Amino acid sequence: MPQIVHRTLACGLDLLVEPMPGAASAALTWKFPAGAAGDPESRQGESAVLNEFTARGAGGLTSREHSDALDRVGVERSSSVGVHHLTISATMLGSNVPAALPLFAAVARDPLLPAEALEPVQSLCVQAIEGIKDDPQHEAMIRLRERHVPAPFNRHGYGEIDAINAMTIDDVRRAWKTRCVPRGTIVALAGAVDVDQAAAILDASLTGWRGACGEPVETAPAQGGIHHVEQPSAQVHIGIACDAPREADEGAMLERLAVAVLSGGMSGRLFTEVREKRSLCYSVGASYGAERERGVLTIYSGTTPERAQETLDVCLAEMKRLEQGVTIEEFRRAVVGLKSRLVMQGESTSARAGAIARDFHRLGRARTLDEIARAVDELTLDGLNAYLARRNFGPFTVVSVGPTALRV
Amino acid sequence: MPQIVHRTLACGLDLLVEPMPGAASAALTWKFPAGAAGDPESRQGESAVLNEFTARGAGGLTSREHSDALDRVGVERSSSVGVHHLTISATMLGSNVPAALPLFAAVARDPLLPAEALEPVQSLCVQAIEGIKDDPQHEAMIRLRERHVPAPFNRHGYGEIDAINAMTIDDVRRAWKTRCVPRGTIVALAGAVDVDQAAAILDASLTGWRGACGEPVETAPAQGGIHHVEQPSAQVHIGIACDAPREADEGAMLERLAVAVLSGGMSGRLFTEVREKRSLCYSVGASYGAERERGVLTIYSGTTPERAQETLDVCLAEMKRLEQGVTIEEFRRAVVGLKSRLVMQGESTSARAGAIARDFHRLGRARTLDEIARAVDELTLDGLNAYLARRNFGPFTVVSVGPTALRV
Repeated sequence: MPQIVHRTLACGLDLLVEPMPGAASAALTWKFPAGAAGDPESRQGESAVLNEFTARGAGGLTSREHSDALDRVGVERSSSVGVHHLTISATMLGSNVPAALPLFAAVARDPLLPAEALEPVQSLCVQAIEGIKDDPQHEAMIRLRERHVPAPFNRHGYGEIDAINAMTIDDVRRAWKTRCVPRGTIVALAGAVDVDQAAAILDASLTGWRGACGEPVETAPAQGGIHHVEQPSAQVHIGIACDAPREADEGAMLERLAVAVLSGGMSGRLFTEVREKRSLCYSVGASYGAERERGVLTIYSGTTPERAQETLDVCLAEMKRLEQGVTIEEFRRAVVGLKSRLVMQGESTSARAGAIARDFHRLGRARTLDEIARAVDELTLDGLNAYLARRNFGPFTVVSVGPTALRV
Repeated sequence: MPQIVHRTLACGLDLLVEPMPGAASAALTWKFPAGAAGDPESRQGESAVLNEFTARGAGGLTSREHSDALDRVGVERSSSVGVHHLTISATMLGSNVPAALPLFAAVARDPLLPAEALEPVQSLCVQAIEGIKDDPQHEAMIRLRERHVPAPFNRHGYGEIDAINAMTIDDVRRAWKTRCVPRGTIVALAGAVDVDQAAAILDASLTGWRGACGEPVETAPAQGGIHHVEQPSAQVHIGIACDAPREADEGAMLERLAVAVLSGGMSGRLFTEVREKRSLCYSVGASYGAERERGVLTIYSGTTPERAQETLDVCLAEMKRLEQGVTIEEFRRAVVGLKSRLVMQGESTSARAGAIARDFHRLGRARTLDEIARAVDELTLDGLNAYLARRNFGPFTVVSVGPTALRV
């Protein structure tokens, strides 16, 4: 059974490694404590700019040389900005981990941050913001979080156009130095990885990397309520959110089961009630995101303007109906589904690297799949129904994007 | 090393199984010979309607009972319509394969096709068509294929609204009987699967399922050329296509390498020239789809109206520049990237089930990853450059969706 090793390296970062017997690949998740919530109020988009600079040269290599070096050892990678972290994700052959780690370490310790890259980077960040308009589903979910979660944890990570365009290269360099620091950085490796070797390589290549940064604090309460974004889209895109347990809360696993009854598989209540019985919409689904400070239960649905109000009404009713409990059949299906997905996750190095990094941030430690499976096994129908009886879903934040507004 | 077993079952379907040592999960890909190209000219969307009916009950079970039964054994599934096939994909624990297979066999042999489901199904199919308008990137790629490929192989699979609404339940039942037939059906299983057991279960549960259907034939040549779809989107979404080798052609593996040089990883030429140097667009990428009858090389790019013409010009120039050959460094990086991705694929049961089913359709047999890796090892820089020297990319079909038209 895989075990997870945790080490705090000399520079202060937390390294988590899950060696997976039988895997030939390895996955890396590198989380800098430089997410959107940490952007200064007047400089929203700083993290988006830093994110682009992760691919603009490091360790004395130009942008081109650095990406050539990673491609030479077959490393596939991407990076993204979340609420708490700027995250680099990568997969590679396990045998190439020793060659790849120093290249990622160089990004952390010694990024090039070249002045001539600033304008192209700003331009790309602004284009990403403009592009949101062409994806009304994505826009609905962005605006939903903006209104449902307290600032600055409600940010989407794209930033603001004026703030991005106002940044100088000195701003970028200062931001990197103060925010992309080892204390608060989480590095997770899963798959064909040797723990001691990986730790030694990182220790050696991160010498001189120093610093810690503060945690973002709440600056404004959530707005909540119902909100419409007028857009000439063909469909109405509806997002619904309500508070849910944090990952550390006892209710987190029960909430996950409840959401599986609501939306897991084709026998989920939403799929049955909204799509199959009433054919109200082509796509509908619920998901539960459990973070360190809060959890959010969200539903998305895209439908025609004529069907939008009924779709919203049915979705809200189905969430409230959960409070009356679920049947033993629904409970069993949800447990089986949850446990099947754990097995799938155990066969994917990138899923495991992502999961143990997220766990460490949310819980201060990473759980093995066995531990999670045991926790699922301890859940009972009575326990779930008692939880749901006191759950009280709501208040709901609702955002719609499309030609017609809705009411709750 | 995994081997792939091929058996033609009593009913006539082709079963392919790749047992994967160490896997606990299993994946299923079930391809009926009922893709969009086979829809009658006057009834485009028939396959989309059949697709919805795959989840509307089977084997004497109602829609609800059937999906409950699959969820009880933790089967995650989805289905989709392609050019040649209506495909059901599923993942589950290997230990649940014996329970799941009869449920999928029931869909094939004994679907419920209830009359009361017709109207909801039609409504959902029409909503899917309406939804395309809200995804201009997707629309650009749909229109690109429509113009670049000869009919009926140019179809997107959503169908036409009038044709869908005109269908009766008798039409649906007749279409199922004549098109969802064993000869031409490909069933692939990969992962923790026992070949003999799976074959025996399918043989037993498919008794009485009979029939064969013809192959679609070309009815009209490709249109090609340059085409603009006026839309008030924020970005211009550009699709470019040109012909490429079929999977069975000798050039297929070389073409794949060339596309990796063009667009693989962050050191790919498109990423470097279009995004990094000129910051012309946020997203750009090429992909190569090799089918049985043809191959198509496509590029997608989304950019601002002001940058759209230059983006198109640079993309076209980069495709032509490939004809002058690639460097030894580019060749090596492309080979390493290709081989790394093969290893990743070997760790995913769903990737393998999908790949061996596609292979069987395109080549008449399924290749192991070892066989593909050996073929990659035989490629040389000289071989690739000789191929590119005679490749002659083009003629190009170009489709743009957005506020301004482009010229070639």
